[in-house]
Amino acid sequence: MTGRPARSTVPAVDVPSGRPAEVPTPAPGDARLTRLSLNQKTTERWSVAEAVAGCVRAGLPAIGLWREPVRQIGVPAAARLVADAGLRVSSLCRGGFLTAADPVLRRRALDDNRRAVDEAAELAAACLVMVVGGLPEGSRDLAGARHRMAEGIAELVPYAAERGVRLALEPMHPIFCADRGVLSTLGQALDLAERFPAERVGVVVDTFHVWWDPDVLGQIDRARGRIAGFQVCDWITPLPPDALLSRGMMGDGHIDFPLLRRAVERAGYTGDVEVEIFNADVWAADPDDVVSTLARRYVTHVLPD
Amino acid sequence: MTGRPARSTVPAVDVPSGRPAEVPTPAPGDARLTRLSLNQKTTERWSVAEAVAGCVRAGLPAIGLWREPVRQIGVPAAARLVADAGLRVSSLCRGGFLTAADPVLRRRALDDNRRAVDEAAELAAACLVMVVGGLPEGSRDLAGARHRMAEGIAELVPYAAERGVRLALEPMHPIFCADRGVLSTLGQALDLAERFPAERVGVVVDTFHVWWDPDVLGQIDRARGRIAGFQVCDWITPLPPDALLSRGMMGDGHIDFPLLRRAVERAGYTGDVEVEIFNADVWAADPDDVVSTLARRYVTHVLPD
Repeated sequence: MTGRPARSTVPAVDVPSGRPAEVPTPAPGDARLTRLSLNQKTTERWSVAEAVAGCVRAGLPAIGLWREPVRQIGVPAAARLVADAGLRVSSLCRGGFLTAADPVLRRRALDDNRRAVDEAAELAAACLVMVVGGLPEGSRDLAGARHRMAEGIAELVPYAAERGVRLALEPMHPIFCADRGVLSTLGQALDLAERFPAERVGVVVDTFHVWWDPDVLGQIDRARGRIAGFQVCDWITPLPPDALLSRGMMGDGHIDFPLLRRAVERAGYTGDVEVEIFNADVWAADPDDVVSTLARRYVTHVLPD
Repeated sequence: MTGRPARSTVPAVDVPSGRPAEVPTPAPGDARLTRLSLNQKTTERWSVAEAVAGCVRAGLPAIGLWREPVRQIGVPAAARLVADAGLRVSSLCRGGFLTAADPVLRRRALDDNRRAVDEAAELAAACLVMVVGGLPEGSRDLAGARHRMAEGIAELVPYAAERGVRLALEPMHPIFCADRGVLSTLGQALDLAERFPAERVGVVVDTFHVWWDPDVLGQIDRARGRIAGFQVCDWITPLPPDALLSRGMMGDGHIDFPLLRRAVERAGYTGDVEVEIFNADVWAADPDDVVSTLARRYVTHVLPD
């Protein structure tokens, strides 16, 4: 333990906002935590071992892992850590980046995705999150990039199926279309996913990426049986200077989380709710404070009906 | 004239990239300039009189005006300036901001929009561009904001019709959904526009806002008869720290302009092509250099088939 005062002795403060907590932090065992997962990117400075221990301290039953920190200790060690702690792996981030036109780069990307599938299988991850990639350097052929990305997914599906891994296509906010993800809407992700069996290819609904979509509720309904993951974080304004780090703690921005949570539940999703926040201020805060804040904000801003 | 060397004596340099010009600057009278319009926000430090003179010097036949600089000299003076110069007013920017829930703010917004309609009529603008507004302060009710925005448009249509002004709904990139425009896709804009006669309510196709949309070509086709304006500027990466100023000179980014230009032409649009760039580096450059660069880039990056 950290030697900090016990939670009950000082009023809790939310990070990174610095605002007083609105509710007590749910204690381990609290029924409201049953589906809450920490995506380890939210506590970026924590190793896998630290993030696993942090989840256990806070009573979170699941974790979303990233390949890079997993690789630092090796996949078998990471798998053992989460299994010993009794955590579910709600997702492994990430495969994808399948838009290269160059055959060598394309082959390399497919090879790397097969390794990601293997890792997801060994970690017993509920899904492998696919961030499909942006436009290749110097290219303006968006339709071509989208076509190659779809072909790449099709090539990976049999390999993933053999290993029991579900690919989860993640539509990304159009702010990332050029440099990160040419899959821009949930509808577009479903158009692609529906070419394959639902248990093989699903979609990730990430509130940050889809909240603005005029058709989001209709597409979530359409996604019945395809929702492989549900991620939450907020859209904050003004946008921080680094757009990649523009995500906020739930409640600090503009997203109506209960609306989207109810929609994914109506569509039959019963899996974990993963908190994934890329934000320099969140990363600068004490990771235990981040976890307790996100547990409180989950209770106050995501769960209410 | 400015006393700078004549254009032909030194190799031209594009701004803000600093790259050598790929082609000579089209001279006034060049047939390729027949539909090119300068949105005056692109040369932000120029007054209306300076922007009008700049268009004349460069041989541009049209200008997109903004209400704030117009107000500095008064609408009649601005109308006289453009008429005397023989320029078309391809658009007036902007009306909108119709999402307020507070009745006083709502009334104020509608009054201001009626003034904008009057100004557009007096300036003989081809359309009044409508930026509909974001979420009201502290609100997360996106559906409500969209509903009020649509009601506001409906309330303005008869007033604009009496004055012969066409409202042009501008779908905005989802990056601006929270704070600027809850109209996020061309499809959503058309859903609203189609409630009214096409000559009364059209849409603006701005490449920056729509290029990422997987359905953009289908929606442009659907917009036949409704395209009130076509604006061009590029999506550049990395995104500058101020997202509002993240637009680039055509050719400096990722957008396939001929693809979108051909689509709006197939949909019957024969109006002006307005260059509208919000960008700190563009604004820091000599405005005459900005205009000659955009004329060159229009020829090399927008017009080719």
